Amino acid sequence: MNFDGSKIEIKSRFKLTKSSLPKIYTPGVANVSLAIAKDKKKAYDHTFKKNSVAIVSDGSAVLGLGNIGPEAALPVMEGKAVIFKELSGVDAVPIVLATQEVEEIIKIVKAISPTFGGINLEDISAPRCFEIERRLIKELDIPIFHDDQHGTAIVVLAGLINALKLTGKDKKNAKVIISGAGAAGIAITKLLLEFGVKNIIIFDTRGAIYSGRKEGMNEAKVEIAKRTNKLKLKGSLKESLIRSDVFIGVSAPNLLKASDIEKMNKKAIVFALSNPVPEISYAEAKKGGAQIIATGRSDFPNQINNALVFPGIFRGALDARARFISNAHKLKAAETIAGLVKKPRNDKIVPAVLDRRAAKAVANVFK
Amino acid sequence: MNFDGSKIEIKSRFKLTKSSLPKIYTPGVANVSLAIAKDKKKAYDHTFKKNSVAIVSDGSAVLGLGNIGPEAALPVMEGKAVIFKELSGVDAVPIVLATQEVEEIIKIVKAISPTFGGINLEDISAPRCFEIERRLIKELDIPIFHDDQHGTAIVVLAGLINALKLTGKDKKNAKVIISGAGAAGIAITKLLLEFGVKNIIIFDTRGAIYSGRKEGMNEAKVEIAKRTNKLKLKGSLKESLIRSDVFIGVSAPNLLKASDIEKMNKKAIVFALSNPVPEISYAEAKKGGAQIIATGRSDFPNQINNALVFPGIFRGALDARARFISNAHKLKAAETIAGLVKKPRNDKIVPAVLDRRAAKAVANVFK
Repeated sequence: MNFDGSKIEIKSRFKLTKSSLPKIYTPGVANVSLAIAKDKKKAYDHTFKKNSVAIVSDGSAVLGLGNIGPEAALPVMEGKAVIFKELSGVDAVPIVLATQEVEEIIKIVKAISPTFGGINLEDISAPRCFEIERRLIKELDIPIFHDDQHGTAIVVLAGLINALKLTGKDKKNAKVIISGAGAAGIAITKLLLEFGVKNIIIFDTRGAIYSGRKEGMNEAKVEIAKRTNKLKLKGSLKESLIRSDVFIGVSAPNLLKASDIEKMNKKAIVFALSNPVPEISYAEAKKGGAQIIATGRSDFPNQINNALVFPGIFRGALDARARFISNAHKLKAAETIAGLVKKPRNDKIVPAVLDRRAAKAVANVFK
Repeated sequence: MNFDGSKIEIKSRFKLTKSSLPKIYTPGVANVSLAIAKDKKKAYDHTFKKNSVAIVSDGSAVLGLGNIGPEAALPVMEGKAVIFKELSGVDAVPIVLATQEVEEIIKIVKAISPTFGGINLEDISAPRCFEIERRLIKELDIPIFHDDQHGTAIVVLAGLINALKLTGKDKKNAKVIISGAGAAGIAITKLLLEFGVKNIIIFDTRGAIYSGRKEGMNEAKVEIAKRTNKLKLKGSLKESLIRSDVFIGVSAPNLLKASDIEKMNKKAIVFALSNPVPEISYAEAKKGGAQIIATGRSDFPNQINNALVFPGIFRGALDARARFISNAHKLKAAETIAGLVKKPRNDKIVPAVLDRRAAKAVANVFK
């Protein structure tokens, strides 16, 4: 596949002729402009805003590659724009930024927002991403969605819903271990709590996060510590995995071995989502006796991929002209995706990544 | 023509399939990202930047409609994007801004610049546009082009070159009256001076601009006053038109009558470019005896329209990876456009707006 140039292009929806030109451009376009000048909301009827999303990244946390900067982030955003268009018809424009200052980013996104019907924040490092998202939701009247957080959380929950069903585990009793307290880890935890999971412990590179921990904390971790790890356990990830039911990794490659999975409760659920190299390989997790194994990879069963989520979320939000994306939307989206798998099996807990039903079903959440 | 929604859309250049997905997006895209992280310039080979331009407007001076704001400006920018794509294949993205602060606009354009191969400033009011353009040219390494200034100036000069030929007037002796000291008026004057026109007087609503005038001046007017109106004439527009050779209006509707044109020198050249209502109607100018009459309108001969310029300017600048657009480029572009009219006539001084040769010929200026 030859990636000479962009993965996307601009296309005119009208043919340019001597007779169409004065309608598309001056003087005819003045009528449309005047109508919008009188009533800004008409921009949703007559402009790009109706169907557009900016994919905004500062290149600070791109894939597993880290802080590679805006230019290097651009191909990823273009790939995302392809998925948007192909799966849900949304016109997504990559906007990569030459700044990594939180206040600057907020200012810039606000300034360019009249062009767009929604903002997809992407690959912005934690904890900066939390403040940027919080402020933009507060200060703009278009939907803001940080996909690394909520896209991931929704598709993880979708998979977990079916995994719990298949293993007969109960969300209220299951012991859930989450490795990674970045954008994804924090958002997954919040959504699982919202869903009704009661017993969650999150780990970062320093070990278990608990209320009162001093080192390596930030506002997001302090907040989440109040709602997780009630016993304030301080052990290592491996210690905590003992007699746990669910492992969700959104952290780093090769953290675990088969022997760690063996110590989990029976019918263990293992989501090793670090990509491309998971926290534990599919084969190792299998060897450790896990009943359900999911990764971010396309070459193993149960690929957990945001592409099942973001096209439908924005399709729905744009069509409904939703001003924000609520927890209720997120929960319903997860349940909807889970429900698309009519007969869940250990190796089929989520739809295929390109299952064209997903975007449509998720969009309907906004109806 | 039904303008439901946008005039443009995003199109994927690749088909999304199970096998293309991991190349277009993760994990395959990481290779492209890493290559660019090592050498930023590779963004020009492998991303949207190769062929993209942002059409940036703050909605402060839109067409003849004035300060109608970003949302209302958006349809105009979309129309421009259609012309870009259809005439030169450039992927132009409208970016309308929710701020009209000069420093903010500079900051925002700089911040979003990694996404784009060039910046087309559009419909930003004078004199703010001059400072914004000056600073961006200085502070960014991609070409910046304020089309209301330079696109207009280039196509006006193109028409003037043929008009001078047809009337046998000499650029060094012709008395040129310019009505309007906004973005277009200032830029036309500068380019005409560059071309070798010696005798120019510019007018704003307060009358002739001259060195030392106190009222209604700004930095751009002070500068241009030093290079025009050597005799420091203070009269009205109508007085100055007496025994002049060329009138170029980029100002306001219905300023002149046939009797004003009658007082100009023989073989008068009248460019009445206020749009849609010109400074003097085609019929009135004809009645006044003008030999050559041009307007911005498509329903009269000699339509002076930037669409002959900007698609080719950016096509050429992008392909050459030019860091800026120089006066030499502008002069050559004007001469090139003039040269496309093989046998100029009074009613044919510029090519037709959609003459597909123009973009290609103008682009070659960068070779």
